[in-house]
Amino acid sequence: MNFSSKLIEDSVNAFATLPGIGKKTALRLTLHLLNMPTETSEAFCDTVMKMRKNIQFCSTCFNISDSTVCSICTNTARERSTVCVVESIRDIMAIENTNQYRGLFHVLGGVISPIEGVGPGDLNIEALIERVKAGTIKEVIMAISPTIDGDTTIFYLSKQLQPFDVKVTTLARGISFGGELEYADEVTLGRSIASRRIYDDGT
Amino acid sequence: MNFSSKLIEDSVNAFATLPGIGKKTALRLTLHLLNMPTETSEAFCDTVMKMRKNIQFCSTCFNISDSTVCSICTNTARERSTVCVVESIRDIMAIENTNQYRGLFHVLGGVISPIEGVGPGDLNIEALIERVKAGTIKEVIMAISPTIDGDTTIFYLSKQLQPFDVKVTTLARGISFGGELEYADEVTLGRSIASRRIYDDGT
Repeated sequence: MNFSSKLIEDSVNAFATLPGIGKKTALRLTLHLLNMPTETSEAFCDTVMKMRKNIQFCSTCFNISDSTVCSICTNTARERSTVCVVESIRDIMAIENTNQYRGLFHVLGGVISPIEGVGPGDLNIEALIERVKAGTIKEVIMAISPTIDGDTTIFYLSKQLQPFDVKVTTLARGISFGGELEYADEVTLGRSIASRRIYDDGT
Repeated sequence: MNFSSKLIEDSVNAFATLPGIGKKTALRLTLHLLNMPTETSEAFCDTVMKMRKNIQFCSTCFNISDSTVCSICTNTARERSTVCVVESIRDIMAIENTNQYRGLFHVLGGVISPIEGVGPGDLNIEALIERVKAGTIKEVIMAISPTIDGDTTIFYLSKQLQPFDVKVTTLARGISFGGELEYADEVTLGRSIASRRIYDDGT
């Protein structure tokens, strides 16, 4: 693209470094900020910078937080005997949005992946073991994506947690709600037949 | 969505004000900036702020510029007798990318639109008349979108330019290159039959 201004070009290139944003979208965003009053554009940049500079990671569960301990860990109404282990902060948001879980979390910061060079030492596993050692935790839920790397991570964690008196559980796997049997892949369908449950009509 | 951090929530809302960016994309961008080193995120904000604060509009043609007169107006290699009138800066970029035009530009900043309350006084029309009055301009090309508002604007401008010794031209209208006759709308097809040209095989 041909920009008559170096400033515009720099701004377009800066936006284009963000995921899912190409040169054309970057130009649209740049021209949008240009058409807004200077104060609005300034407020936008200030908000983003403030977020980047002041955000902290919870010292207990590694969730993002405005202070040293996150709002979930400080919430006394939550069940302190259950910890849900997730890959990333985004998974916490997804689980919180279901309103089905009232325990605590632990963010690993990824999964073990020999191909990408991520070993157990790169993840927040040591801290999880320390939390379990402390003794209040009775159940560790592995809410990790059912991929090969995810399964490896669950296997590794379960071995590490074996010496302690905790129940290790995984999320139920099966057909998605609203999914059609015909379109389910064989592995999912096979596993959901193998782990079939007695029908409960809720009465 | 349920954010455990006010800082993240503010940043997501800031990104979501940009055109074409919803809450989910805004969250993805926010978490991306969070995962980058602080310096990279800072450089991103600095570039955008520098662009917004230092950008100027060319005093002659209203193009965006790093100085008071833009690089197109100061370029002595360009034809000074032709001015191409466009709605916005984006149109200049589109025309420049064709490499077919060597003259100057004039940005109106919109089109006359009674419905949206945009009158001739809201556009850079006075400045265009002044440029034509100066005498060096021989041709004014109306490169304005063929909409009802665009046609109104072209009509108004042509009336305003009538007293001066300039040729007023519009972009050729017809079937798009690579377009199929079958799918062209009736108005376009009808007009392109009416304004048919003698075949020129280029030899």
